[in-house]
Amino acid sequence: MENLVIIGGSDAAISAALRAREICPSVQPTLVVADSYPNFSICGLPFFLSGEVTNWRSLAHRTREEIEQAGIRLLLNHTATKIDSDRKTVQIVDREARTTELSYDQLVIGTGAESIKPNIKGIDLPGVFLLRWMDDSFAVHKRLTEEQPQSALIVGGGYIGLEMADALTRRGMSVTVVEFSETILTTVDRPLGDLVAKELERHGVKVATGVQIESIEDHGRSLTIKGTNEFSAQADLAIVAVGCRPTTTLAAGASIQTGARGAIKVNRRMQTNLPCIYAAGDCVETWSYLLNSYTYLPLGTVAHKQGRIAGENAVGGNRQFVGSLGTQAVKIFDLVAARTGLRDVEAQEAGFDPFTDQFETWDHKAYYPGAEKMIIRITGDRSTQRLLGAQILGHHKSEVSKRIDIFAAALFNKMTVEQLNDLDLSYTPPLSSPWDPVQMAAQAWVKNRDHL
Amino acid sequence: MENLVIIGGSDAAISAALRAREICPSVQPTLVVADSYPNFSICGLPFFLSGEVTNWRSLAHRTREEIEQAGIRLLLNHTATKIDSDRKTVQIVDREARTTELSYDQLVIGTGAESIKPNIKGIDLPGVFLLRWMDDSFAVHKRLTEEQPQSALIVGGGYIGLEMADALTRRGMSVTVVEFSETILTTVDRPLGDLVAKELERHGVKVATGVQIESIEDHGRSLTIKGTNEFSAQADLAIVAVGCRPTTTLAAGASIQTGARGAIKVNRRMQTNLPCIYAAGDCVETWSYLLNSYTYLPLGTVAHKQGRIAGENAVGGNRQFVGSLGTQAVKIFDLVAARTGLRDVEAQEAGFDPFTDQFETWDHKAYYPGAEKMIIRITGDRSTQRLLGAQILGHHKSEVSKRIDIFAAALFNKMTVEQLNDLDLSYTPPLSSPWDPVQMAAQAWVKNRDHL
Repeated sequence: MENLVIIGGSDAAISAALRAREICPSVQPTLVVADSYPNFSICGLPFFLSGEVTNWRSLAHRTREEIEQAGIRLLLNHTATKIDSDRKTVQIVDREARTTELSYDQLVIGTGAESIKPNIKGIDLPGVFLLRWMDDSFAVHKRLTEEQPQSALIVGGGYIGLEMADALTRRGMSVTVVEFSETILTTVDRPLGDLVAKELERHGVKVATGVQIESIEDHGRSLTIKGTNEFSAQADLAIVAVGCRPTTTLAAGASIQTGARGAIKVNRRMQTNLPCIYAAGDCVETWSYLLNSYTYLPLGTVAHKQGRIAGENAVGGNRQFVGSLGTQAVKIFDLVAARTGLRDVEAQEAGFDPFTDQFETWDHKAYYPGAEKMIIRITGDRSTQRLLGAQILGHHKSEVSKRIDIFAAALFNKMTVEQLNDLDLSYTPPLSSPWDPVQMAAQAWVKNRDHL
Repeated sequence: MENLVIIGGSDAAISAALRAREICPSVQPTLVVADSYPNFSICGLPFFLSGEVTNWRSLAHRTREEIEQAGIRLLLNHTATKIDSDRKTVQIVDREARTTELSYDQLVIGTGAESIKPNIKGIDLPGVFLLRWMDDSFAVHKRLTEEQPQSALIVGGGYIGLEMADALTRRGMSVTVVEFSETILTTVDRPLGDLVAKELERHGVKVATGVQIESIEDHGRSLTIKGTNEFSAQADLAIVAVGCRPTTTLAAGASIQTGARGAIKVNRRMQTNLPCIYAAGDCVETWSYLLNSYTYLPLGTVAHKQGRIAGENAVGGNRQFVGSLGTQAVKIFDLVAARTGLRDVEAQEAGFDPFTDQFETWDHKAYYPGAEKMIIRITGDRSTQRLLGAQILGHHKSEVSKRIDIFAAALFNKMTVEQLNDLDLSYTPPLSSPWDPVQMAAQAWVKNRDHL
């Protein structure tokens, strides 16, 4: 029986363990988990902090018992400190600094990512928080419940920053979001980001763009936060959410090669450069389906897929990671913003000749109550008409996220924009139109491209 | 300039006219429309009769003015009575029985379908209604508002019957649905149909299956409706919705060939057997993408696609109808039932070796408020693993209809069930899971197939 050791306790690690068991029931994987929270949905932290999730334990995708019943051995509160790839051992340390060694036949590294800690004076002050793991969220939660802060400043207008703006507003706090770029939510095009900013402002959130935070000072209960463009604000709490980077100290120490943004280099079988060592999830480079190259794009969906493949291959399988389209969705108050594939600028950089068209329509037949406007941006190659990417902004009841998935399925199958009109999509007046908005947008793209 | 005449005023006819104008702006199509309601959404009639749509005029996809401004000539209240394919003329009659003749270079027939009038004694009584066109709905509406009926019996447990059960319940009426088959909503598998029946009963609708209605008697205000299995009920109003058949008298009179269920035979370019005569929509046979044969499956989505292709080809284009997957969705009270592709029995008949698996999960992460259970049934070929069809039943806020569209896109691209797991689908906890329910169902299908 192969001895499978997996370092990590989040999406990639658990997926690898489950898949290994599924393919090869005689394997009993050992997971080395740095904290006490294996298989927690860290994407759910903002909803715990908003109060919408009342019990943090429900954030677990599976309970500890379920994982163990699935035949997976959990070594909680153990940190892997060293990999010896010649001897095929991993050194692990517990919370009392006791060191032991695990032997492996096959090893999967799923160490994930960590919050980027920007160069802000005062970032280590007690009222300033990063947010990635469960312990981070407990620290914020303690502050929220014990100190009852009335205001918050959030550094970073990406997914976590905006979800936290939504979350803390729901708690009744006064919230300011500060973003370095000229628009928030830079993962989508500016017209959509600007509408998300309006949605935030509609709910009382102040949004400051083009500002780099430089210093945070503590004045007892309140923080003074200063930045470029003479930005200055007071807040009882600050959350810094400016992105993440791969956690690769362990891998680098074992001479495992790293690449883009310092992430672990893997092939499509999720193998590192060292024999019998796989890696998956937020700690690795990700194959881009459309760019045909490796990028760094840490997403939970991708971590699940990569982990599943690493687990399958670690027990003798031979499966390739097909690649990521960068499909993603986020809900901010009443809106959902979603994207898949390439945006215009990314398509240009990749050597395509892109044309991007924006189309607005109702999410379902306007005569049926509750119709909401939806904006769809399609990017396609001008000459070949190949679909390259799409972005949708709409109401959270408008099936935005699964409409972006229609585009994702089309991208996966290398369809043209016009071919979207051949898809036999469902229709009933409360939910769509005879041509789904996705198809109306495709027809507009073709028409406007032709008229150029 | 080609003289394009189109017979019909609903989905296929309007789509043909619009597409012809788009491709060839010099063409000015003439539409011969039997009533005063061109381009009305007849799928919306139940929502007008429920009171959710307060003004019937809003059921128009486009107003008469918009259609005419698009360069389309409307001959309303004119019925085409004869096609002379040698002289290339159409005889038309207005409401005053005045006959004129139109010449055409190209002709598109989009005469649609008509309600099947089953052999029920008393079906022509004043309180008994069929429901397909605007005038039908006005007749029902008049009865509802003038007579204030308190109860209704609906013959037929298909889409229109169930939408009308929902609609009339919303009006505060007591509703009974009577279906000839052993289950309602026979377009989906019985476990799903049974749950829809429960949903109806939860809202106070009585459901009687396995009953064929034989007679309706008028007793002043109330009707007595009797059927097989000693069925007997009283109701103030009866609606008969047992399906439709293609309207092809005109075409048959011109020696245009008909086929399955009497629908007009067309090729994939939507051409009939006669030169320069196209046909599209509910009056034609429809090419089935998966069966590789013609069937009769009248759906608004398909009518739009076929009309668009007929219009394009009528002005010199050369486009083929790719085929229908039979994708469809219906909302009944809080539930949506959707399907695409083949069901197990249909796949068997088509020579596949199908395996169908049912999977139940949450529509999004259960920790986020509002999670609802969703049932997904996947049919795939046992040996090739090719995806053949899917059915979903879930809450109307669970993105059921666009999730079925992910399957529809996969079917269109001839994907295997396992390949669904390679799709990069969107995820955020309020809307999905890291593996979308579609993918979880695919994984269950693969696992259960392997264990057979």
